[in-house]
Amino acid sequence: MDELDIDAVAEVSLDDPVLVEGLPGVGHVGKLAAEHVLEELDEQSTLVRRLYSREFPPQVTVEDGVTELTCAELYAVEVPDGRDLLVLTGDHQAQTNDGHYVLTDAFLDIAEEFGAEEVYALGGVPTGELIDEYAVLGAVNEEPLVEELEELGVEFREDEPAGGIVGVSGLLLGLGTRRGFQGVCLMGETSGYLVDPKSARAVLEVLEDRLGFELEYDSLDERADEMEDVIGKIQEMEQQQQAMDVPSDDDLRYIG
Amino acid sequence: MDELDIDAVAEVSLDDPVLVEGLPGVGHVGKLAAEHVLEELDEQSTLVRRLYSREFPPQVTVEDGVTELTCAELYAVEVPDGRDLLVLTGDHQAQTNDGHYVLTDAFLDIAEEFGAEEVYALGGVPTGELIDEYAVLGAVNEEPLVEELEELGVEFREDEPAGGIVGVSGLLLGLGTRRGFQGVCLMGETSGYLVDPKSARAVLEVLEDRLGFELEYDSLDERADEMEDVIGKIQEMEQQQQAMDVPSDDDLRYIG
Amino acid sequence: MDELDIDAVAEVSLDDPVLVEGLPGVGHVGKLAAEHVLEELDEQSTLVRRLYSREFPPQVTVEDGVTELTCAELYAVEVPDGRDLLVLTGDHQAQTNDGHYVLTDAFLDIAEEFGAEEVYALGGVPTGELIDEYAVLGAVNEEPLVEELEELGVEFREDEPAGGIVGVSGLLLGLGTRRGFQGVCLMGETSGYLVDPKSARAVLEVLEDRLGFELEYDSLDERADEMEDVIGKIQEMEQQQQAMDVPSDDDLRYIG
Amino acid sequence: MDELDIDAVAEVSLDDPVLVEGLPGVGHVGKLAAEHVLEELDEQSTLVRRLYSREFPPQVTVEDGVTELTCAELYAVEVPDGRDLLVLTGDHQAQTNDGHYVLTDAFLDIAEEFGAEEVYALGGVPTGELIDEYAVLGAVNEEPLVEELEELGVEFREDEPAGGIVGVSGLLLGLGTRRGFQGVCLMGETSGYLVDPKSARAVLEVLEDRLGFELEYDSLDERADEMEDVIGKIQEMEQQQQAMDVPSDDDLRYIG
Repeated sequence: MDELDIDAVAEVSLDDPVLVEGLPGVGHVGKLAAEHVLEELDEQSTLVRRLYSREFPPQVTVEDGVTELTCAELYAVEVPDGRDLLVLTGDHQAQTNDGHYVLTDAFLDIAEEFGAEEVYALGGVPTGELIDEYAVLGAVNEEPLVEELEELGVEFREDEPAGGIVGVSGLLLGLGTRRGFQGVCLMGETSGYLVDPKSARAVLEVLEDRLGFELEYDSLDERADEMEDVIGKIQEMEQQQQAMDVPSDDDLRYIG
Repeated sequence: MDELDIDAVAEVSLDDPVLVEGLPGVGHVGKLAAEHVLEELDEQSTLVRRLYSREFPPQVTVEDGVTELTCAELYAVEVPDGRDLLVLTGDHQAQTNDGHYVLTDAFLDIAEEFGAEEVYALGGVPTGELIDEYAVLGAVNEEPLVEELEELGVEFREDEPAGGIVGVSGLLLGLGTRRGFQGVCLMGETSGYLVDPKSARAVLEVLEDRLGFELEYDSLDERADEMEDVIGKIQEMEQQQQAMDVPSDDDLRYIG
Repeated sequence: MDELDIDAVAEVSLDDPVLVEGLPGVGHVGKLAAEHVLEELDEQSTLVRRLYSREFPPQVTVEDGVTELTCAELYAVEVPDGRDLLVLTGDHQAQTNDGHYVLTDAFLDIAEEFGAEEVYALGGVPTGELIDEYAVLGAVNEEPLVEELEELGVEFREDEPAGGIVGVSGLLLGLGTRRGFQGVCLMGETSGYLVDPKSARAVLEVLEDRLGFELEYDSLDERADEMEDVIGKIQEMEQQQQAMDVPSDDDLRYIG
Repeated sequence: MDELDIDAVAEVSLDDPVLVEGLPGVGHVGKLAAEHVLEELDEQSTLVRRLYSREFPPQVTVEDGVTELTCAELYAVEVPDGRDLLVLTGDHQAQTNDGHYVLTDAFLDIAEEFGAEEVYALGGVPTGELIDEYAVLGAVNEEPLVEELEELGVEFREDEPAGGIVGVSGLLLGLGTRRGFQGVCLMGETSGYLVDPKSARAVLEVLEDRLGFELEYDSLDERADEMEDVIGKIQEMEQQQQAMDVPSDDDLRYIG
């Protein structure tokens, strides 16, 4: 296999689509969001490309005993009353520094192939504590987009996210700029300890307004309730363990 | 030396052979199994290829003072009443992420060269505790194979192995699919703490039924008895050290 | 994007310029120094080149919500009564061993392009304790330069810096030699725990004498005072925490 | 700079020379040995090649304020009454797995260029405890060499060195075999905690007998006495620290 190996699974012609990226990351917010879009818009979605690469970890996943080689998948989503989508998701990020550059360029190549000129990178930003109000932070690669997104409730804060944006989400904007893509990164606040369906919903609600599609959230909310139960159980356990001590978020461990 | 350097040691024409891989891994199950096949079918086995690569660790092994450059070896095994075998074994896995891809493709190239269209990857799956009944887990790259193997007692469990299958064993199925190989991974349960000849025997007994060869197990059973003694000694020591404490498997360290 | 991707932002013809490097490192001394030069000689400075590379971390910085792909920047600085400067700065070093070689060669290519035949690499050398008198250590790639710099107060000590000079600063001299560049490395002593504007000033004062430009230091001194306050607060805290214990520098953590 | 960059510093025609490698390693035994040969046979030695590579760490050494780019050096040594030598030494090993392959091939290319068909790799083998009698272990890439070296007092032990031989020393034999070089690795026993001139002398005394040159050992013995003093001081310190406890070698740290 070459460094990159792309399977053209199907061809769908989209009308001025936007690339929506949701690979694994903090709180799995981006991945949850992308997969929820595909689940809810199942009828209108078609798997169009599979991308295999030596930059992914050397492994297969196993489902019901059948193996699947690690890859990234792109789905064409035809949205009647909104913008068409090209949704990118998968189980892994690149494993090396320059692998992120290689894969991001490959994703942008495919986006160009489908006529996309805009990119939405979805992810989470860790707050270090459990969250009640799920704010959505924004970053863009063209200054005018700031105001447009603020009108949709996206927050832009000085020096946030502190460390910049790392990995494919960051490079989709960074390399995108150099290739003429308009880029937006939407980051849902999340504790960083847990898979966070609520944060994913917050991000998707902004995206709905921006791109003009509509989703049901029952399945995502169910998933959120399950996580609530998990958190509850953990905190109980800790209260018991720590006798009189007040449990601190630091005691939580990452749970998926 | 190039990234890959293959020595054609001998030529043997095999009749519709299957590639059987047993490189080092959990409990050295795959390696023990592959080497036992070669030991028991010594008469019918011929070393046909040596594969050297920069992807292997930069070292030589030393036996009786004579050095041998790290490599993988492939043996042609002619089985009178069963399927011919192309057995792959060696002392090391690749040392880098994409090295696993490079080596697996090279192994499949050689398999094709010998006319193989099926791959059996042998390995172990760690349970974290000492084992009495050695179950063999399976994974395949074509759904229909599940039932065929279940009839031979191979177990397929939902979401097992949890983390998927990493390294050459996984990629032989993953890349194999893309190259038209039918692939089966047989994983013997093993504690994960010890080299496990019993697990290797469990895996081989499935392979015997599947491919129609027959092996003696005296030497492997002897090796197993030696390991039993080792475990016994460790547990004694720990019981002494820990006074009244009950020894837990966690106290065991990996022993080869 | 290729391994290297250089944007020619502007063209400025310089008169026998020297390359002045200030990438991040110990105490951020080099980076602070280079940025102070650009800040103070703002009028005479022009951004001429941006260098992007897979060797940089795969990330974007975010300022006021707008992303900037990680890169290195070179500024042409025209100095009326002194040597013209080509100032190199950025937010990151290369992330891999050979990435340092790749980037350094690229920087020297650009230096040649602008007619530079001399390189000044600016950095810090860690002492492990807080500093009162800021000595500047030197290293050169041509023996005769030692005496010239000693006359400007630069110190040359046997076997210092102990581990040699690592990264771009070291390679600018090492590779520079092989390409006919005269090279000087100026290293300000710094604790190694803190961003150190005072050390940056000590380095710049040598550079002023050597290259014949003049800077104001108010902004750098303010920054230094802020750091003094930080140190003070830390030491207080520690004195309180440690009751009667005398605080040791080892208790300080790196603060930027 | 390319991956490899070789400077032909001088040309010397040697008579059937042997390549003698002494790069840094356990106890710096190989490096001490190679450098002692060059020091004692100074008159007959000529620096013939400098090899620079991205596989070396990205750094310069600094001596008396002057920088030297990391490299490996090869010296031609004309030995009147013995075999001519091509001595390889330097300050660093490769920094990556396949870098060891790349550099070893480059060293063998140069050896071929000078007509060498034999390689002697010098190094140390760690025993984990301080040593009185300095045995020299051997490994060869052609079985008949075992007996020849045993006659010179070299020891060959089953399964030693346990982990095989890693890095350039191992690959000089491993890759050497594939390129028609006869290869010998001489490993002096050493604690592994300290730079060990005595072990280097033990290795050199074997090499003298084998290749027919003669060295003085005063300077190496002086260095050994200094190390003895260091060991003595450490043990004292530990006896004091540990009151009544008997000091164990494990308490020693690596000291160069």
